[in-house]
Amino acid sequence: MSNLLTRDYINELRSIIEKKDDGAALEKLEQLHPADIAEMYENLSLEEITYLVLLLDPEKASDVLVELEEDERESFLEALPSEIIASHFIDNMDSDDAADVIGDLAEEKQQEVLLHIDNVDQAGDIVDLLGYDEDSAGGLMAKELIRVNENWGVTTCIREMRKQAADLDEIYYIYVVSDENVLLGVLSLKALLLASASSKVKDIYEADIRSVRTDTDSEEVAQIMEKYDLIVLPVTDSIGRLMGRITIDDVVDVIRDEAEKDYQLASGITTDVETTDSPARLSRARLPWLIIGLLGGIVVSGVISRFEEDIQINPEMAFFIPLIAAMAGNVGIQSSAIIVQGIASNSLGLESTIRKLGKEVVVALMNGLILATILFLYNFFINHNLALTFTVSSSLLVVIMFAALFGTMIPLFLNRLKIDPALATGPFITTMNDIMGLFIYFLMGRLLYGAFM
Amino acid sequence: MSNLLTRDYINELRSIIEKKDDGAALEKLEQLHPADIAEMYENLSLEEITYLVLLLDPEKASDVLVELEEDERESFLEALPSEIIASHFIDNMDSDDAADVIGDLAEEKQQEVLLHIDNVDQAGDIVDLLGYDEDSAGGLMAKELIRVNENWGVTTCIREMRKQAADLDEIYYIYVVSDENVLLGVLSLKALLLASASSKVKDIYEADIRSVRTDTDSEEVAQIMEKYDLIVLPVTDSIGRLMGRITIDDVVDVIRDEAEKDYQLASGITTDVETTDSPARLSRARLPWLIIGLLGGIVVSGVISRFEEDIQINPEMAFFIPLIAAMAGNVGIQSSAIIVQGIASNSLGLESTIRKLGKEVVVALMNGLILATILFLYNFFINHNLALTFTVSSSLLVVIMFAALFGTMIPLFLNRLKIDPALATGPFITTMNDIMGLFIYFLMGRLLYGAFM
Repeated sequence: MSNLLTRDYINELRSIIEKKDDGAALEKLEQLHPADIAEMYENLSLEEITYLVLLLDPEKASDVLVELEEDERESFLEALPSEIIASHFIDNMDSDDAADVIGDLAEEKQQEVLLHIDNVDQAGDIVDLLGYDEDSAGGLMAKELIRVNENWGVTTCIREMRKQAADLDEIYYIYVVSDENVLLGVLSLKALLLASASSKVKDIYEADIRSVRTDTDSEEVAQIMEKYDLIVLPVTDSIGRLMGRITIDDVVDVIRDEAEKDYQLASGITTDVETTDSPARLSRARLPWLIIGLLGGIVVSGVISRFEEDIQINPEMAFFIPLIAAMAGNVGIQSSAIIVQGIASNSLGLESTIRKLGKEVVVALMNGLILATILFLYNFFINHNLALTFTVSSSLLVVIMFAALFGTMIPLFLNRLKIDPALATGPFITTMNDIMGLFIYFLMGRLLYGAFM
Repeated sequence: MSNLLTRDYINELRSIIEKKDDGAALEKLEQLHPADIAEMYENLSLEEITYLVLLLDPEKASDVLVELEEDERESFLEALPSEIIASHFIDNMDSDDAADVIGDLAEEKQQEVLLHIDNVDQAGDIVDLLGYDEDSAGGLMAKELIRVNENWGVTTCIREMRKQAADLDEIYYIYVVSDENVLLGVLSLKALLLASASSKVKDIYEADIRSVRTDTDSEEVAQIMEKYDLIVLPVTDSIGRLMGRITIDDVVDVIRDEAEKDYQLASGITTDVETTDSPARLSRARLPWLIIGLLGGIVVSGVISRFEEDIQINPEMAFFIPLIAAMAGNVGIQSSAIIVQGIASNSLGLESTIRKLGKEVVVALMNGLILATILFLYNFFINHNLALTFTVSSSLLVVIMFAALFGTMIPLFLNRLKIDPALATGPFITTMNDIMGLFIYFLMGRLLYGAFM
């Protein structure tokens, strides 16, 4: 459907908006999913998109608001009065989306919007959800769910479910609780469908159920849902009472965000940005790592300057500076990437750190020997400089071993300090390995040139 | 639950296996989810894990098999006779999992296993699924689903559903088809639950339904399900007949794999590896990029060797070789990462290529000016060498602009050629930018040293 969003389509829509032709605009939007309408945000002015969204029925308008990027939503809501936000949007949202939207507003506006929500129960749910950390199960969950008592019969159960279902877009599971609202298990629609009318809930529900607590970290929630292929996961408080449920679509966002963050960190970008962001924002996201790289380069220049005389006598040593630096960086990034990814997907296994390091040394030795040999053959047959040939190849081998060890140890070390290990990849490890690698290179050069002359 | 998997736990289990104490082993495994049992694969020998899996009831054993990593599954099945594979495992699997498992076997063994499947319908489903490309919607889908005719009444509908439901773990949606099996829409369990007994399916189903065709690319399937927050997506053939359905848990794997592949490519690793893989496999996955990096380094050494005299006269020029090379590489990776990610998540928007390049130039100019100024101040006040100061800073600025342009253009260009743009990040772009950057640096040096002396 999203291939409807061509430049022609948007130009037509803009001319309709300019004429304020409500009917034509609504007709044009009818074919679009809320996610498609949200996607047009970047191609329309704030006035244009506001006009369109307020034209939609509140149900669809709320869905569009949920689908907007966070920064788009902020600027969109800033211009709207609190009454409109409450009545046109929040009243039609699931509690988790409503809490996300309200949570992004300024403190004062949050209060105003909350006071304008008609349904006191919903306002209460939102206030509850706002109390949880954004990156916890409580911050991900919605309050809407179907809850039945273990002592009910199937008929009561279906009657009560009909009442509760009015609030829900879709039913995936029915949760079974005790009189004290303690989560006991889950009743599948399949079991309900296949049960005889005289059965009781306690006879047909499944007691073996996986749940998380409100304070479980959202990445752990993602790992659990992914590992056990769950569509919905119930959330309890510390004494097991059912508080809400998390659906897989919210977790897909967590997984995607996490993967993008790691990838951007590895590429030297500090905050989440997209191609469509402003140059100033794009620049700010990249500058910190570049400055670290620059300072690292200055340190490296200091290291090399201590070997100024060697370079003056043997200027050919300078030719291989970039090769040594690049290989040190590449090997370090390869080693760290495997570890960072293993930590992120919780698949490091039970292998001990010592064994991991040992294996890295073996891999580095294998690759290092192959690469040093290629370089040796090149220099031996093309450059005809024995001292240079031995210096470059032997230091390449040593540098690769060091770089692999650093690349493995640094992310493991950061992880133990509870610092995001993804920080270790990218410019940070490259710079460290440059400094270490070139120092080794020139030191070996001094030794070997001494030996050969 | 997975925190049950401690080293102590596994040691206990191994001693039970050694004693061949079936009862104790089963009791020990009872608390574990199939995904947990699969996770132990790397800590047990092939004999040990085979003993355990064959001990389990076929239902749970099949789930364990599905949860194994692909290479683990291959070596596990290699040792088993075709009859056991068919009766103990395949008979209890959903058609999509069964097709995945059989698809990984050797050609000859595939035939043997297929002939040993008792249920001819299931064997037929599997043969159908094996015909689809692994990376298409057909390769992801399962045949099991609930299908009702638009002309049925609610009571017939529920009776037929009960029959069909026996095959299914869980019901999420009921698909409505015409007499010719053409997909018409979806009937939610909620609608069915709330409908009166006299309604007909055609009165209560939702006709507005998103579907994909069997030949839709799996990444597009992932993007659609993610964008529209879908749990299940029906798959049709080219004339709209309902062929199967894809569930979100299979797509989560696609998303995770895609993100990991991009991250590994950006880190210079060519095939999917994990820390637990063998050193030989780890080495093979890294060597290709390292060799490219090495050859790039040799080319760079050739470029620099053309400036041998300049280095001999002004050896301090060599001090900043790593800085220029590193900054060219970092800027190039930053620019390409944003584009690669935009392409992967389909969020590049409608912005034209020219506008994107223009924006990159602005960002590069801003960052370049800031970085060149810092470097200028450092060299001016510390190094007291005017020619060097001007050379390093002005070439840094020029190099950053070029690197940003290359970093943006190369992935866009690869994408247009239908080559995975993630190839552009990592060692490839770093090496290209090293060559270009150092050439600019020494050229500017020759010009500026000439001007200042």
